[in-house]
Amino acid sequence: MQEDKPTKKVAVVGGGLAGALMAVYMAKRGFKVDVYEARKDPRSEATIRGRSVNLAFSVRGIESLKAVGADDSVRELGIPMNARMIHSHNGRTTPIPYGKKGQFLLSVERQKLNKDLLSVAETYPGVDLHFEHKLIASDLERGHLSFRRNGNDDQRLEVDADLVIGSDGAYSTIRRELLRRPRFDFSQEYIPHGYKELCLAPTKDGEFAMAVNYLHIWPRQTFMMIALPNQDKSFTCTLFLPFEEFDKMKTKEAVLDFFQAEFPDFLALMGEENLVEEYFRNPVAPMISVKCHPYHVRDKVVIIGDAAHAMVPFYGQGTNCAFEDCLVFDGLLEKHSNDFGAVLAEYSRTRNKDVEAMCDLAMYNYIEMRALVTSPVFLMKKKLFNFLHWIMPNTFIPLYTMVSFSQIPYHTVIERSHWQDKVVWRAAVATAVVTGIGAIITALRITKKDLKLF
Amino acid sequence: MQEDKPTKKVAVVGGGLAGALMAVYMAKRGFKVDVYEARKDPRSEATIRGRSVNLAFSVRGIESLKAVGADDSVRELGIPMNARMIHSHNGRTTPIPYGKKGQFLLSVERQKLNKDLLSVAETYPGVDLHFEHKLIASDLERGHLSFRRNGNDDQRLEVDADLVIGSDGAYSTIRRELLRRPRFDFSQEYIPHGYKELCLAPTKDGEFAMAVNYLHIWPRQTFMMIALPNQDKSFTCTLFLPFEEFDKMKTKEAVLDFFQAEFPDFLALMGEENLVEEYFRNPVAPMISVKCHPYHVRDKVVIIGDAAHAMVPFYGQGTNCAFEDCLVFDGLLEKHSNDFGAVLAEYSRTRNKDVEAMCDLAMYNYIEMRALVTSPVFLMKKKLFNFLHWIMPNTFIPLYTMVSFSQIPYHTVIERSHWQDKVVWRAAVATAVVTGIGAIITALRITKKDLKLF
Repeated sequence: MQEDKPTKKVAVVGGGLAGALMAVYMAKRGFKVDVYEARKDPRSEATIRGRSVNLAFSVRGIESLKAVGADDSVRELGIPMNARMIHSHNGRTTPIPYGKKGQFLLSVERQKLNKDLLSVAETYPGVDLHFEHKLIASDLERGHLSFRRNGNDDQRLEVDADLVIGSDGAYSTIRRELLRRPRFDFSQEYIPHGYKELCLAPTKDGEFAMAVNYLHIWPRQTFMMIALPNQDKSFTCTLFLPFEEFDKMKTKEAVLDFFQAEFPDFLALMGEENLVEEYFRNPVAPMISVKCHPYHVRDKVVIIGDAAHAMVPFYGQGTNCAFEDCLVFDGLLEKHSNDFGAVLAEYSRTRNKDVEAMCDLAMYNYIEMRALVTSPVFLMKKKLFNFLHWIMPNTFIPLYTMVSFSQIPYHTVIERSHWQDKVVWRAAVATAVVTGIGAIITALRITKKDLKLF
Repeated sequence: MQEDKPTKKVAVVGGGLAGALMAVYMAKRGFKVDVYEARKDPRSEATIRGRSVNLAFSVRGIESLKAVGADDSVRELGIPMNARMIHSHNGRTTPIPYGKKGQFLLSVERQKLNKDLLSVAETYPGVDLHFEHKLIASDLERGHLSFRRNGNDDQRLEVDADLVIGSDGAYSTIRRELLRRPRFDFSQEYIPHGYKELCLAPTKDGEFAMAVNYLHIWPRQTFMMIALPNQDKSFTCTLFLPFEEFDKMKTKEAVLDFFQAEFPDFLALMGEENLVEEYFRNPVAPMISVKCHPYHVRDKVVIIGDAAHAMVPFYGQGTNCAFEDCLVFDGLLEKHSNDFGAVLAEYSRTRNKDVEAMCDLAMYNYIEMRALVTSPVFLMKKKLFNFLHWIMPNTFIPLYTMVSFSQIPYHTVIERSHWQDKVVWRAAVATAVVTGIGAIITALRITKKDLKLF
């Protein structure tokens, strides 16, 4: 028993990706950590498909895992994606690299990573995992939590913690309690699109059905489909479509007509029967963007990950950002010698502007991914920026590179991106003006000369 | 007993201003109306000061009362305010009229109006008012409500209604239930300013201490104070200041120094002792802006007033907008022959863009009132717009006039205002360009002439 030691007790509410990693961070600091998760232990169950977009892991996520030596599983599980692969209507494919050579995203199955992280957390003696513990009441000021166990109203558990970390996801119960407190800013916004997963199985020969090291995108202006490779040589494909369009496709014929018109190459790979089966088996899920402030209550409670900042999935930064929360929070614990009061206040204040910047970037990419990647002007700008980055690697970094392949704080990313756009714009205008003035001067000289001739 | 009639039952949750007026509207349509209010009957209690900015009643509010013949009390209670009265640091006062002659706001005490409206509602045989009924649970899909009565857990009331109207204010319980439903968009934002009320008593001679028919404003860029006249010849004064500034003023000396520096004329009218007493007696209250969508659940539940769209008080439109909700809702009941399903869907869809436009305008006026009214450019623009309105009364209507002295839908107000700004801006640019070209032509002619002279 650890009870005799004056160790501080940390209760982590929610054992998803952020909660599991946070448990590792807290255990490494020597705290007694209890993780309470409403669902069953995912490791005791078969993987359930169809409800969550694959992870596109990048630098922030990897570095946050590396800091506590938990990056092995991602490196083993992940499949590198070096570029986007754009699929046009006629089946033509065009790769657009993510960054420089050697810069790639890792396609990782969400649930596999979650299971691995829970197992890593459990290797620490200070960590206890409690599944089927549903939070039903709390007194945030005092750090008191009441759980219902095993879905049984008679089985209650009362917990007092020195620090409560709410990592209970986009529909967080802890955040709902924060919402009752004075001067808590909050917004949640559903986008008009829903998403549906479709699994593209390996070929008969047991191979990937499409080029493997790519994030495949079928941009169609008002909607799109993407596909990420899995270790079992399947692809997890995700169709993003306005809810009202999903609602219209009620019959097998309607679905096949739609795919024939919009994604004929994909339909050929899937096969009609298979596609229809997948389509009607999997649900349509909504996407929410959540912002709030502050993230903490005194020295007692803090929320992280989706509970604090759920974002739409179009930049692949949801989990990367949640993992970075853990790294940043740990840095503040180090800075303030584990003084929870000081840490929570600074975390709330400084982290807020970064994660809200990321929520905005994700919403921006919601447009870029389905529409802009098909625009020649956009592609030209991308090439120009990559060129500028090549000649001035530290001064000029494309937006996507800053987000995915650096640890520059997100709000600085936006500021620098605006600055870069402005510089390029001014340079373009200046070039135009200089050229124009040159032309005028030339013209005037000619006139003068001409006049002298008379 | 009405139970034998096939009359539809409407439950109004919240007996504040919007709920009381809505009860009148619904009773007029022949529905059985029950109003459930958590607090005691305000008519049985003395008026409590210090917690809510006075109402500045304008056309939308008055017309909404008039439509059900409930405007007498406002007309009797209200004190016309024909203009803003700007108080500068040195005590100089400058009036800025709200609109044309005969256009004024009515200063009305919130609680008096609430009491009157409850009494008006009670004159209808179909209306029953239930005070000290606190909503503790609900099943919105079914229109089922559970109330706790008289603060006693053993006294419960279970209610089934054909239509539930949630008018339970900025911290609405009904809205909290909506928040648990899928695809409900919601935001709440607290502004950095808090407010504190200070009562300026009548003079010794029993007269108003300042000019009566004005909304007095002390704009101080980052903060401000306002004062509205009451029927008892006092003024309700409201200081809007960032919370952190309020927090700094802990002592009598600090308060007096602040008022001496910022509002010396007001301090002279209040007297030092009186000011300090008022200052430390009254609380600092926060201000919240709330937006959400949709406002309804099937044909069963709808939210109105602050429950649907709390706004900061700087345009004086909170209650006007809430009352207009009742008028608009009633219009849709008429249009759809009381078909709740059709009415609720259309109300949600169409009213949303108007009230969110108003929330934005109120936030804009939060800046205008304390800062812009002191800017000469702003005042010049106001004069120009009033002049344009005078020569083109139907084409050109100043923003403030459209909001306060018309029933033009709020979202149209914003669109027209943008259009008007653009037209004026273009006209200004065109004038400048024409003048410039004229000057150049003149200059060239002179040069030609000069050249000929040589």
